[in-house]
Amino acid sequence: MEEKFAITDRTKVRRLRDRGCYDREAVYKILDEGLVCHVAYAEGDSPRVIPTGYVRMGDNLYLHGSTANHMLKMAIRGAELCVTVTLLDGLVLARSAMHHSMNYRSVVIFGRARAVQDPEEKLMSLEAFVEHVVPGRWADIRQPSETELKVTEVIALPLTEASAKIRTGPPIDDEEDYALDVWAGVIPLEIEAREPQRDARLDPSIKVPGYADEYKRLKVES
Amino acid sequence: MEEKFAITDRTKVRRLRDRGCYDREAVYKILDEGLVCHVAYAEGDSPRVIPTGYVRMGDNLYLHGSTANHMLKMAIRGAELCVTVTLLDGLVLARSAMHHSMNYRSVVIFGRARAVQDPEEKLMSLEAFVEHVVPGRWADIRQPSETELKVTEVIALPLTEASAKIRTGPPIDDEEDYALDVWAGVIPLEIEAREPQRDARLDPSIKVPGYADEYKRLKVES
Repeated sequence: MEEKFAITDRTKVRRLRDRGCYDREAVYKILDEGLVCHVAYAEGDSPRVIPTGYVRMGDNLYLHGSTANHMLKMAIRGAELCVTVTLLDGLVLARSAMHHSMNYRSVVIFGRARAVQDPEEKLMSLEAFVEHVVPGRWADIRQPSETELKVTEVIALPLTEASAKIRTGPPIDDEEDYALDVWAGVIPLEIEAREPQRDARLDPSIKVPGYADEYKRLKVES
Repeated sequence: MEEKFAITDRTKVRRLRDRGCYDREAVYKILDEGLVCHVAYAEGDSPRVIPTGYVRMGDNLYLHGSTANHMLKMAIRGAELCVTVTLLDGLVLARSAMHHSMNYRSVVIFGRARAVQDPEEKLMSLEAFVEHVVPGRWADIRQPSETELKVTEVIALPLTEASAKIRTGPPIDDEEDYALDVWAGVIPLEIEAREPQRDARLDPSIKVPGYADEYKRLKVES
């Protein structure tokens, strides 16, 4: 695969152009850090957007759900998808109202998905999904049964048309506003894990595993 | 306005029905806690979804941006919108792979927006937006100029067709899996603010305000 995504009419960042990024590695890094994506599809003129988990494996984004899931059904029928992953990194407090902003890293992907039929690829994508969310978890849990796999739909969206949009750094104020007596800067935001809550039906002798006890949404190095 | 949203074909939660919620107060509470929404619209068959800030004021959701913003232009031309706000509350670790899940609260809204022309409503919505993101900030900052207001588009989406979807609580495992020697429970996730970063050009005598120093994304009581 090329290191850079080709810029298309849909992925080109038009306004605030320096926020646009077409670098495959940068796009994958954002995808590997996120937990939830928003998937849009159109029903005629009527748009739909739903949040769901995902995982990137190689040059594909994998989504899964029940075989009864409407979005997955539409995708398999060939509906075009637009998938966005957004990481909110901070609140940008400027000296003037209109220069307030947010620091974020987002990815947008366009394309059509294919149903994953191959049982091995299906299972691998589900393992990758669990490991994407909680690294280390897969080895501990009961694996999917044949019946469970049968009622689970997995689709793969090729990462061929995508781009990232990134805002970092301090507020950018109008030059004359820098003299104002107003605090300005950034409030960084992070996703933080709290102490794991044991299932009430759990045997008291079962200890909380390290991957849950010290869970961190790592900024994954790709 | 009615306390309950009418259930429509598009807002009805079909699978896992008990997660559906049509209560106006519950929907507003989620909207008031979130910071970023995902707005979808269709360009013919081709869906688009973009992340952006928002604020709820009364029974409307307000979005704003540059007058050059494509999504806002489409909305003003009458394009149907689908807006989703998703709050991720935790990772649900079940004993079996396929019962892993996430705790979340999400809202979906359908409708067409109107351009906000009235200068007073426009200004009020921008104030509400800043106060939604950082309560207490508006009084400290330089107010929008006439020129700034002119190049800012504000749209209002009426909250008439909406629903929430909520998952809370522990994993739900298959009965026979409860005997497995596997830790199960929930890793709660929260958005946490770090220490504010001062703008490098800020006069050292200007102290960080309390609303930035002790920023918390409050679960707003509505």
